[in-house]
Amino acid sequence: MNLAALLTSAGINIAVCIVLFSLYSILRKQPGNANVYFGRRLASQNTVRIDACLERFVPSPSWIMKAWESTEDEILAIGGLDAVVFVRILVFSIRVFSIAAIICTILVLPVNYYGQEMQHKNIPLESLEVFTIENVKEGSKWLWAHCLALYIITCAACSLLYFEFKSITNMRLLHIIGSPPNPSHFTVLVRAIPWCPDESYSDTLKKFFLYYHGSNYLSHQMVYSSGTVQTLKNEAEHMSKIIKSTSLEKTCRPSFKECCHRGGHTNSFKILSNEIYGVQGTQGYSDMHLNEGAAAFVFFRTRYGALTSAQILQTSNPMSWVTDLAPEPHDVYWSNLCIPYRQLWIRKIATLVASIAFVLVFLIPVTFVQGLTQLEQLQQMFPFLTGILQKKFVSQLATGYLPSVILMLFLYAVPPTMMLFSAVEGSVSRSGRKKSACYKVLYFTIWNVFFVNVLTGSVLRQLAFFSSVKEVPAQLAKAVPTQATFFMTYVLSSGWASLAFEIMQLFPLFCNLFQKYILRLEDDSQNGTLSFPYHTEVPRVLLFGFLGFTCSILAPLMLLFLMVYFFLAYLVYRNQILNVYIFKYDSGGQFWPVVHKTTVFSLVLTQVIALGVFGIKRSPVASGFTIPLLICTILFHEYIRQRFLPVFKHSSAQILMDLDRKDELSGKMEEIHEQLRSAYCQFVVPSPGSSKSECSSHHKEEDPENGRQVRNQTKGMDRGIYCPREK
Amino acid sequence: MNLAALLTSAGINIAVCIVLFSLYSILRKQPGNANVYFGRRLASQNTVRIDACLERFVPSPSWIMKAWESTEDEILAIGGLDAVVFVRILVFSIRVFSIAAIICTILVLPVNYYGQEMQHKNIPLESLEVFTIENVKEGSKWLWAHCLALYIITCAACSLLYFEFKSITNMRLLHIIGSPPNPSHFTVLVRAIPWCPDESYSDTLKKFFLYYHGSNYLSHQMVYSSGTVQTLKNEAEHMSKIIKSTSLEKTCRPSFKECCHRGGHTNSFKILSNEIYGVQGTQGYSDMHLNEGAAAFVFFRTRYGALTSAQILQTSNPMSWVTDLAPEPHDVYWSNLCIPYRQLWIRKIATLVASIAFVLVFLIPVTFVQGLTQLEQLQQMFPFLTGILQKKFVSQLATGYLPSVILMLFLYAVPPTMMLFSAVEGSVSRSGRKKSACYKVLYFTIWNVFFVNVLTGSVLRQLAFFSSVKEVPAQLAKAVPTQATFFMTYVLSSGWASLAFEIMQLFPLFCNLFQKYILRLEDDSQNGTLSFPYHTEVPRVLLFGFLGFTCSILAPLMLLFLMVYFFLAYLVYRNQILNVYIFKYDSGGQFWPVVHKTTVFSLVLTQVIALGVFGIKRSPVASGFTIPLLICTILFHEYIRQRFLPVFKHSSAQILMDLDRKDELSGKMEEIHEQLRSAYCQFVVPSPGSSKSECSSHHKEEDPENGRQVRNQTKGMDRGIYCPREK
Repeated sequence: MNLAALLTSAGINIAVCIVLFSLYSILRKQPGNANVYFGRRLASQNTVRIDACLERFVPSPSWIMKAWESTEDEILAIGGLDAVVFVRILVFSIRVFSIAAIICTILVLPVNYYGQEMQHKNIPLESLEVFTIENVKEGSKWLWAHCLALYIITCAACSLLYFEFKSITNMRLLHIIGSPPNPSHFTVLVRAIPWCPDESYSDTLKKFFLYYHGSNYLSHQMVYSSGTVQTLKNEAEHMSKIIKSTSLEKTCRPSFKECCHRGGHTNSFKILSNEIYGVQGTQGYSDMHLNEGAAAFVFFRTRYGALTSAQILQTSNPMSWVTDLAPEPHDVYWSNLCIPYRQLWIRKIATLVASIAFVLVFLIPVTFVQGLTQLEQLQQMFPFLTGILQKKFVSQLATGYLPSVILMLFLYAVPPTMMLFSAVEGSVSRSGRKKSACYKVLYFTIWNVFFVNVLTGSVLRQLAFFSSVKEVPAQLAKAVPTQATFFMTYVLSSGWASLAFEIMQLFPLFCNLFQKYILRLEDDSQNGTLSFPYHTEVPRVLLFGFLGFTCSILAPLMLLFLMVYFFLAYLVYRNQILNVYIFKYDSGGQFWPVVHKTTVFSLVLTQVIALGVFGIKRSPVASGFTIPLLICTILFHEYIRQRFLPVFKHSSAQILMDLDRKDELSGKMEEIHEQLRSAYCQFVVPSPGSSKSECSSHHKEEDPENGRQVRNQTKGMDRGIYCPREK
Repeated sequence: MNLAALLTSAGINIAVCIVLFSLYSILRKQPGNANVYFGRRLASQNTVRIDACLERFVPSPSWIMKAWESTEDEILAIGGLDAVVFVRILVFSIRVFSIAAIICTILVLPVNYYGQEMQHKNIPLESLEVFTIENVKEGSKWLWAHCLALYIITCAACSLLYFEFKSITNMRLLHIIGSPPNPSHFTVLVRAIPWCPDESYSDTLKKFFLYYHGSNYLSHQMVYSSGTVQTLKNEAEHMSKIIKSTSLEKTCRPSFKECCHRGGHTNSFKILSNEIYGVQGTQGYSDMHLNEGAAAFVFFRTRYGALTSAQILQTSNPMSWVTDLAPEPHDVYWSNLCIPYRQLWIRKIATLVASIAFVLVFLIPVTFVQGLTQLEQLQQMFPFLTGILQKKFVSQLATGYLPSVILMLFLYAVPPTMMLFSAVEGSVSRSGRKKSACYKVLYFTIWNVFFVNVLTGSVLRQLAFFSSVKEVPAQLAKAVPTQATFFMTYVLSSGWASLAFEIMQLFPLFCNLFQKYILRLEDDSQNGTLSFPYHTEVPRVLLFGFLGFTCSILAPLMLLFLMVYFFLAYLVYRNQILNVYIFKYDSGGQFWPVVHKTTVFSLVLTQVIALGVFGIKRSPVASGFTIPLLICTILFHEYIRQRFLPVFKHSSAQILMDLDRKDELSGKMEEIHEQLRSAYCQFVVPSPGSSKSECSSHHKEEDPENGRQVRNQTKGMDRGIYCPREK
């Protein structure tokens, strides 16, 4: 593949992107699409101002300006810490790869280009391999330039990582201190409550906590097992009738604030909590205890009390009375709470095995796709195509564009599968499930996009690849530069196009059009409830960072395409955070450690490949200098792990105690305790006619999973699992 | 090597053992050796009854009877839970290998022996390979016997492991509940106290804990940095003069009981604790604060308070205010307490690297030793030996005995080195250091005795061994049966002889004789203070278990020799626990998880090797049945990890709270608090002339490490580091 073919590919992609971005700037101005492109605004403000008539059909870059101008504080206010962390990933990537691009353009690219004594062709007709390290001749003294570039990139990445980690840690602490009293700080999720034949789980739990944590115990709320959902639904209908007769109807009691006021709406959902049972404890509910799961939320008087109860081993049997700090109310993944704790370890192992199996089965289409990148293979397979493939434009299209598109389509099946695995794994919070899926998708993506392409590409030439562990660096060093072209086209096609599709929101857009113009429905309630898909977007961005690092000194041309990607991503995702996605819960920056680990892994792999390359190019000096760099990078990671990571795992006692003290002094504690009792609601019952009342919600829906009425927050998540999001 | 050669080797070893055991039974009756063979009894009872004159010179098996008859309760009372765990390892091994021996003798041995259609020689002249799985022909239908034996052995091992783990967990809990109030339960070790320029560490700490843990905080005691030891020694001398003038002299105050009464002795050592500073805070001590380290023991009012403070993250910086539950007073490794916490992570990495380097350097002598087992190699290297080596007896000696002895001698350098590494690592407790050294010695032993012998033996024939990861099972399957003969002789020589040397206590015996008859010293104080060397004995026993599992179905003959070893070990170690070693501290069975992990690893490796063997022997059925067994073994381990391991890492709140409540109700709490203040003493000053007083101790000594007066408990440990123990 020569430079012209690459530029053709880039041209096609640029054209596609410009068309799509222009289309977006028109479509977003159509009032009918407001619930596709302004879902978050609709949810929080109920109206979105649409501009005047004529301008509606003229593309304009106003959204770019808005996305550019918004401050970090705005994003923090809208999307919480997680959104800020996501933007920070992009900022970090832009910074690192700016430095890398400058260094590599000045230092590495000329060395590569003039690496061998050869007759240079006209630059556009020059093969891309001339720009990679493959063009440097063996034993060249100029390899110190690559080594120096590697040093500068590593140092820049590590110091930026350090400052980012420090700043995000501080933001996390400020987030804990600054946010309004969070019920999750006072609440402990207790699982594996032992079964006593004489009494209900609730009584056992109450006895245990009153006896052992009496000074701190406030109250508790049982979790009801999902097997009894149908019963509960019937009960709930009955309940709603009872509640109807009370004075609660059509009023939004402040004590239910935590449960109902999120998202700016006020609902008249009624809560099926312990309190109501206490009040309405008539006949007909006495057998409700049979349906209790062996899990409960226990509320404590102070944050510190909850923290200590959550972290210590309760009894001498680690499989009973398992305590953890509870997730935020909107973050709770209710259907997993009643999974018997004894199953969890086996579920985790089963999920691990299933994930590995999934990766193995996935090899088949990827190998096929890889075959397409090699024109001769394609001609051999489909001889009738030979005529078409020999046409220059078609061959450029086939080699530069088609394979990536096919690969991308296959990859769309991955996140929903991984989300399903993470749900089966038994995560108790939605954010935990997303984080787990994020890891799985990340491993999957890096393995299947990078390693399999690098290794399969070579397997076609060389049968046994993993013949020796210690030769892997050298093998990678041979294979990665030859595959650099593919990765470049991958950045162009998958990277740039994915951003255009992301901003277009094709799937919701078509759903919306279908609903409006085919079904002629006027109800907007099905849209505008997507939550940010961290589990697909974080791995995507990290993959491009990974490709950037590994190819930086080998094929520096890629860095230029990557810079375009990261700049576009910065604008697009900021726009999406501001306008589209709804942020119901906040994991407090839990995605940053993922980013850190992946970046360090990328750096280490880059250095290992460099070591292999310097070995192949017979430059013992450059190899010798790479080894200390490798050691320092690992030591740096270890230091960060010691210094910052515990803050992301556990809350610090000092901060929680200071908060406790502040609330006690200001007399807010009583109010917080009152709110706690209704913070977590497993089942909410809409009072009849509430959809028309002042307290109505646009977002109530039937949960497809188990047919009970749940809050709107589940919407985005379940869509995340069961149907692939289109971009 | 044929059976006769093996029996010659066994005969020599049996003779050596009988001679040494007889010698022991005579030597132990000599009054002059009492401090070698009855160190523990001397320390606890001060006198040991020696029998009448004539019998002193007649060997007798009375010690065997005593060792056999003692109950587990006796051992628990004498040696604590750790000693019981050690005996349980032996009991477990005896049980498992009894089952394995029976199964393999009935099922596997005949199949191996009649595995090929061949003319069998007279059994003594039969090559040992006839008894191994190598003799079974390819594609034999009888391989199901090996597979069945593997199933039975694995099931027996796993179920025994489960019940042992359960019983030891219960014993650990009973140990916590039943033992007298333990100061370590009330004490938290705080490290990395941040430095304030305005105030001392002590004041900073007091402020912090009064503010954040005011309701639980009792008092604290600073740790003094080892750099100031000389200053402190001078201070201590000064102190002793001051104390001399107080009424404390020559009385044993009950409040110092925890510090001084261990081992049955009463000392008039005076304690240089905070309290005394408080009382004696005259001029000349005002600059003492400069010498405070950034570590302290903080005493809490309740066990639960200490537990929670120890387990939570104190501040938002995980590198400051690091809290852990304190070790027992006698278990504290004082010189490591003041290591800056920031150094610990780098020390751990450095130790890891050093350990790996040590393993690599060690390969050289082991490779040389391995060369000796092959007679032709020896003859090539030393042509002048050819004449001698061709003599039958010499050749049998050379092949069967010499290599193991040389290997054993080399291995004696390992435990002290690993102890040194573990000390550098920064462990804060002696038991922690021993456990860490135990792991290192274990990895070292298994790698260098098993893997290197298996692999090097093949490297001589076959240059590249680790050519492929996935072929390792097959390679091991080829190599292990051929090395089974070596392992058998290793069990005979190293195993049996090590027990004889262990019971003879050669090094202390010679020291004693040298002192008594050459130096003509009458002072016994230098002897009888050895602590049990878990870090050498646990890996040794586990190594033989490991060899037993891996060779069980491959070369079943070994199991018979192994049974003898374990029976002897059971008697010898019980005798040593009862008579020789002093147990100053108790880690509460922390060695059992090591045993469990190693046993599971052994089982898994055995199965992997069996998989390889069945592959080589072309028995797909047997291979197919081995895979589910492998999976089940790993699942079993995972279950045990979930079910029992947390109890060995953390104390359970329930138990500690029950203890707190009991002590509060019985009014003992005040007394415990009083004792706590003097429980931990970094420096003890002997009052002049105390050695002659009623409160004198035989065991005070100069610590060779830093020249200060310490309690006798350090003796065994430091000897453990700086001079190899002879057995």
